[in-house]
Amino acid sequence: MTSTSIKTVGVIGTGVIGASWTALFLAKGLRVIVTDPAPGAESKLHEYLKKNYLAIPNKIATPENYLQNLTFVEDIDPYLGELDLIQEVSKMASQEGVKKVLTTFQNGPERLDFKRRLFAHLDANTPEHVLIASSSSGLPSSELREKPISDIDWASFQPTALNTLSGDSSHPKTGDENVTAACEFYRSLGKDPVIVKKETAGFIANRLQAAVCAEAYSLISRGIVSAEDLGKGVLSAKLAQFDSNFMVLDKTMTSGLGLRWAFSGPIMTNLLGGGGDFGHFMDHLGPALKSWLDDMNQHQFNMDSTTEKENLKEKVNQLVSHVDIEKTEKNRDTFLTGLISVRSEI
Amino acid sequence: MTSTSIKTVGVIGTGVIGASWTALFLAKGLRVIVTDPAPGAESKLHEYLKKNYLAIPNKIATPENYLQNLTFVEDIDPYLGELDLIQEVSKMASQEGVKKVLTTFQNGPERLDFKRRLFAHLDANTPEHVLIASSSSGLPSSELREKPISDIDWASFQPTALNTLSGDSSHPKTGDENVTAACEFYRSLGKDPVIVKKETAGFIANRLQAAVCAEAYSLISRGIVSAEDLGKGVLSAKLAQFDSNFMVLDKTMTSGLGLRWAFSGPIMTNLLGGGGDFGHFMDHLGPALKSWLDDMNQHQFNMDSTTEKENLKEKVNQLVSHVDIEKTEKNRDTFLTGLISVRSEI
Repeated sequence: MTSTSIKTVGVIGTGVIGASWTALFLAKGLRVIVTDPAPGAESKLHEYLKKNYLAIPNKIATPENYLQNLTFVEDIDPYLGELDLIQEVSKMASQEGVKKVLTTFQNGPERLDFKRRLFAHLDANTPEHVLIASSSSGLPSSELREKPISDIDWASFQPTALNTLSGDSSHPKTGDENVTAACEFYRSLGKDPVIVKKETAGFIANRLQAAVCAEAYSLISRGIVSAEDLGKGVLSAKLAQFDSNFMVLDKTMTSGLGLRWAFSGPIMTNLLGGGGDFGHFMDHLGPALKSWLDDMNQHQFNMDSTTEKENLKEKVNQLVSHVDIEKTEKNRDTFLTGLISVRSEI
Repeated sequence: MTSTSIKTVGVIGTGVIGASWTALFLAKGLRVIVTDPAPGAESKLHEYLKKNYLAIPNKIATPENYLQNLTFVEDIDPYLGELDLIQEVSKMASQEGVKKVLTTFQNGPERLDFKRRLFAHLDANTPEHVLIASSSSGLPSSELREKPISDIDWASFQPTALNTLSGDSSHPKTGDENVTAACEFYRSLGKDPVIVKKETAGFIANRLQAAVCAEAYSLISRGIVSAEDLGKGVLSAKLAQFDSNFMVLDKTMTSGLGLRWAFSGPIMTNLLGGGGDFGHFMDHLGPALKSWLDDMNQHQFNMDSTTEKENLKEKVNQLVSHVDIEKTEKNRDTFLTGLISVRSEI
């Protein structure tokens, strides 16, 4: 199966991630059969699709056939034979919605258990050539299925329609030809798939992100970063709205590390820092790096401590109380569209 | 002292960081007195300045007075009375160069020891109102000076002329008025200063970066990421040159996390992930985050192990052997200029 043979996609779950996958599939001219048993899911999805059409880069579909190719169904079972690929996003949907995807699973309160039963059902009722892709933030697929044939886990990033990275992770039993076919498919949608060689909790991106979050929580909890800001600096008024006065830690990322990481990853950044020689970098800056890591290990944020977590929540909530989430999301989409365009020009 | 009163800046050390500070100061119309005893430092600096003029955003100086305002001196001591601010960058310069900044320190082979003696000398010979700023990647300034009056540590990021973030860290004994004056000055140059409330090894940005590097080293060492890539995806040919086929781990950053972090830092990203509620995010995704962090702690890259480090160097060197560093740096500058422009528009 090649990417070009994938014409009809099934989407199970239309939470934020599922809806943005649906928007992307439709914008690329695919036929999409969608299900989500959550109350009001269909109208919410339509609202999302209309709002986000313009933000999708390199669209193929016109505004008209963008929506015409969508079929929302109450039960996807009768359609399983028509699909070329299933994008399972139920973990990302609300728990209430997930529980009702298939009536047989209405009594499944635990997500992993629910997912296992959902995949067993899909395995039993889907032709063997159909690629089954699961959006997960870090669950290795061998925990979901005993005998996988063609499933691949993808850690999606928001907004799915904009970010270049589709996701990662391959089940050890997933055939290479299926990985290749899935990569070709996602690449044809403008995604940039990353393959994980060995199953790893959190795959790659979420582990890197977790590392940053853990240290950020520690720095905020320990009072290392200031809550106050001394001005808007070079930020535009709109950007300053959510970046000044309460997000000093975040500014370290948005005005520094993030800008650089949007161009060069950690290894290339090390390489540039070492004048083109990674060994030189390690010999030269390794000892400093080690001393910071030792200090960080000594001051790890304790994810087991309810007190630490509640204190952190209180601190953060005070800082972010005035954030306009909808406006921020809109600004993010504008920014990412511009950024991806800059990237594609160099 | 306000930022507008800073007209003449001294730069000690003209390695990569010192040279880019010099370029920025000159481009902003300041008079700059520079010293670096390394052989060929003056001609190398001139070469750097000419090459990088165009890449500096929002220049005030014309190409002519950009270079006219520069004075390269063998010994900066006679000029200390004329300076409004000293940008000390000797740690970033080559060790050989550092040792010879002041003849009295020629026998100082240890950087920390050298820095201490340099600052003691500057303290003794500089008028009290002069701000002394030290570029350091993570040395708390109380380790450098016993009685600081007006010094601030700044962790610079490459390229200094482009990145919005100047740096961070304040000495606990540094007066608030000096911190404010320094922030105003750097902000007037287009930087976005971050204040560290309590001295911390590695400040903020380098700790976040270290967290990512440590996990990246672990993932590469453990063979989790694939060395091969399946194609160039959406990357342009130029970008693919250093991004495909050998930098799968880096792609996770440049095609995903980095793009997002260029817009929203870790806390805002959590907030968006929690639908505007950090507490919801923590309750909802905290357990998954914890499970990944536990797994990461179990598989930490051992910075003490020579074997692990040598194996990593070998793996990375194989991957990056064909990288054209000069071209990559040029692409980075083009990309960051465009990115900062997109940022300022939203």
